[in-house]
Amino acid sequence: MQSTEPYKGVRDFYPEDKFYLWYILDTFAKTAQSFGYEEYDASILEPAEMYKGKTSEEIINEQAYTFVDRGGREVILRPEMTPTVARLVAGRRRELGYPLRLFSNPNCFRYEKPQRGRLREFWQFNADMFGMSGVEADAEIVALGYRCLMAFGASADMFTIQINSREVINEMLDKYAVPAENRSALLGVIDRKAKMPEGEYLEKIQKLVPSQQGSECVQSALNFLNEYENIAQHPSFTALLTLLAAQGITNVVVDPYMVRGFQYYTGFVMECVDTDPANRRALFGGGRYDQLLTLFGAEPVPTVGFAIGDVTARDFLETHNLLPKYTPATRAMICYEGVEKSARAQQLATDLRAAGMNIAVNATGKKLGDQFKSAEKLSIPFCIVVEESGFTVKNVATRESAGAATSQDCVSLLQ
Amino acid sequence: MQSTEPYKGVRDFYPEDKFYLWYILDTFAKTAQSFGYEEYDASILEPAEMYKGKTSEEIINEQAYTFVDRGGREVILRPEMTPTVARLVAGRRRELGYPLRLFSNPNCFRYEKPQRGRLREFWQFNADMFGMSGVEADAEIVALGYRCLMAFGASADMFTIQINSREVINEMLDKYAVPAENRSALLGVIDRKAKMPEGEYLEKIQKLVPSQQGSECVQSALNFLNEYENIAQHPSFTALLTLLAAQGITNVVVDPYMVRGFQYYTGFVMECVDTDPANRRALFGGGRYDQLLTLFGAEPVPTVGFAIGDVTARDFLETHNLLPKYTPATRAMICYEGVEKSARAQQLATDLRAAGMNIAVNATGKKLGDQFKSAEKLSIPFCIVVEESGFTVKNVATRESAGAATSQDCVSLLQ
Repeated sequence: MQSTEPYKGVRDFYPEDKFYLWYILDTFAKTAQSFGYEEYDASILEPAEMYKGKTSEEIINEQAYTFVDRGGREVILRPEMTPTVARLVAGRRRELGYPLRLFSNPNCFRYEKPQRGRLREFWQFNADMFGMSGVEADAEIVALGYRCLMAFGASADMFTIQINSREVINEMLDKYAVPAENRSALLGVIDRKAKMPEGEYLEKIQKLVPSQQGSECVQSALNFLNEYENIAQHPSFTALLTLLAAQGITNVVVDPYMVRGFQYYTGFVMECVDTDPANRRALFGGGRYDQLLTLFGAEPVPTVGFAIGDVTARDFLETHNLLPKYTPATRAMICYEGVEKSARAQQLATDLRAAGMNIAVNATGKKLGDQFKSAEKLSIPFCIVVEESGFTVKNVATRESAGAATSQDCVSLLQ
Repeated sequence: MQSTEPYKGVRDFYPEDKFYLWYILDTFAKTAQSFGYEEYDASILEPAEMYKGKTSEEIINEQAYTFVDRGGREVILRPEMTPTVARLVAGRRRELGYPLRLFSNPNCFRYEKPQRGRLREFWQFNADMFGMSGVEADAEIVALGYRCLMAFGASADMFTIQINSREVINEMLDKYAVPAENRSALLGVIDRKAKMPEGEYLEKIQKLVPSQQGSECVQSALNFLNEYENIAQHPSFTALLTLLAAQGITNVVVDPYMVRGFQYYTGFVMECVDTDPANRRALFGGGRYDQLLTLFGAEPVPTVGFAIGDVTARDFLETHNLLPKYTPATRAMICYEGVEKSARAQQLATDLRAAGMNIAVNATGKKLGDQFKSAEKLSIPFCIVVEESGFTVKNVATRESAGAATSQDCVSLLQ
């Protein structure tokens, strides 16, 4: 006998599950549209070679779903959307209008051990803007992330947006003459500061930051760290924070120790964290990646973007009790006993649908009590009983009922 | 250099393409919801063994995307949705309420030679009702298919819904004592009647319909065909056509020669064809498949359903000139020269968004003429120029413009 379980690590979406997935993705979509973003999409199937050098090696080598098709092509189920949007923009770089604002709600695939917050298939809202290089563009992407969470009814104390800047960091690394081959390791140490003792941290930094003229080795590292700790004062952050504050967005902090991993960031980077310690995973992340299109041989176009997954978003909403109650699309089920009432039931359904209502008809001929139980199981708020003459509108939850002589009376009672 | 082409046989959806895909699928969704259908979904990844014996052998052996995952599981990219919805319902058969109306807009995958109307990835609206066995359920599925096309602004003369019935055919095959092993071949001959000369057709029928007592072989075949031609008079069709006519649906004909291929149909079957000879492919197909859940070892539940693909739907809409003009979600782009206007531009954007409008801001600092050209490329209907004092609202297409002193004036001009 065939199992009714889905494939490992993916989800089935019964109507209630689909309602929540849809609620989350549609809230993102509507917020993005309010900022002028337009929806794009693509197939989940992409040529596998497209990801080489673009996505982290861990994803490609250990987590990607790749296979060879019947024609010998190496295909991948997209593990993320950024290379795809870069492909689309690079493909029509000259025909498109800028600033080009794009969003999508793709499903992505990673072969991971399923656990809380990690599944093999997840949806991920992606928003990207192409063609604006100034701090206004950075501010807009932060504001869009902020508004995406606020649109669920969140308050600003529920999350913090941490920002940093690859550009500011590089400026400092240049100043301290950190050799190119040390930079990635140095940022790795900084990223893990909280996870090691102070002494070990300092020791590791010393090995990667060269001695400055006239300074001892330890002093150079201390100078570097002292200045690094204060990068929040850098004018590029001040300009960004000022623009955001003017829009009422103040839960943004410069975090020198937040250094996002993806190699394609070139300017500001951001990560949003839940302030509730019960939910420690990052909510969204993004930043500026001005070299993205060069992967397709196109001239660089200034680009900022961010992404947030449906699973982490739902964890946030559950943590803060922000998920709405499930309501089906169906407003009422028309119930009747006796086939002679069938024509009146159908006519009532037609009338109510014409008034913009979603109406199911129960033509099973079962007892009315059984029909009411079905409506309850389906979470349908109202039943309308076709009587010998007229109708009775019943509220399924409260069991209150009211008589209705005509279709129009039913419309009024259902509103 | 990396190509910007998508994987062979699949589509990229730039905003205009996504607009049309969305328009088609959302029209189906809203129509289904008006009949009380609720949306479900599932992963595109399914255990490969689930399709064995359920989907046509051609699909499984020649067209399915199957591969082995990193854990040794055989996985398939779903080629159709029906086995999945059966799996979901079988998995929670007792908890669900009936009649259970479900719809979905999944993407499905088939490894085919790409050509007009056939792609390797397509979307397919699926609607199914579980738990109603009467002719009312059959009529509802026909009516839903009809309303799905009418919702695009189609008229009833643009398409014909052909119906037939596996049950009625079986009744006749029993009456003529056609052996079980001949039935599939006989239906195959009937299905191809139009494609062969009359003599050849009769000869093939003779070989498959046994001689009746007291009749010659040719006479038995002629008797069978004569009765078969007249199956439209069968009372089960009369009841169905009467219910549909009461709802104003009259473009439905019994076609004895329409015998849908999928093995799981057990009762009425339907297929919708475009009346325009320029578009010959079937628009939607479906019927009754009461044994569907038994594939998962569950007790049978009466089931009717149908499906229609996005590609064939779009071909229909294009043939009859029913596609709407593309309009982006964005209503206006705020334009300005000079960074000193940035704060007023942002404030205007915030005000217009609060009034429910989708507003992009052009903070590139380019010349206004270049900004207007961008808006035109993006098909954004209005530009709002931030002036030294107040604003100018420009209609991008007509080039008409009007002054506005406040945000509220802009709102009025954009409505």
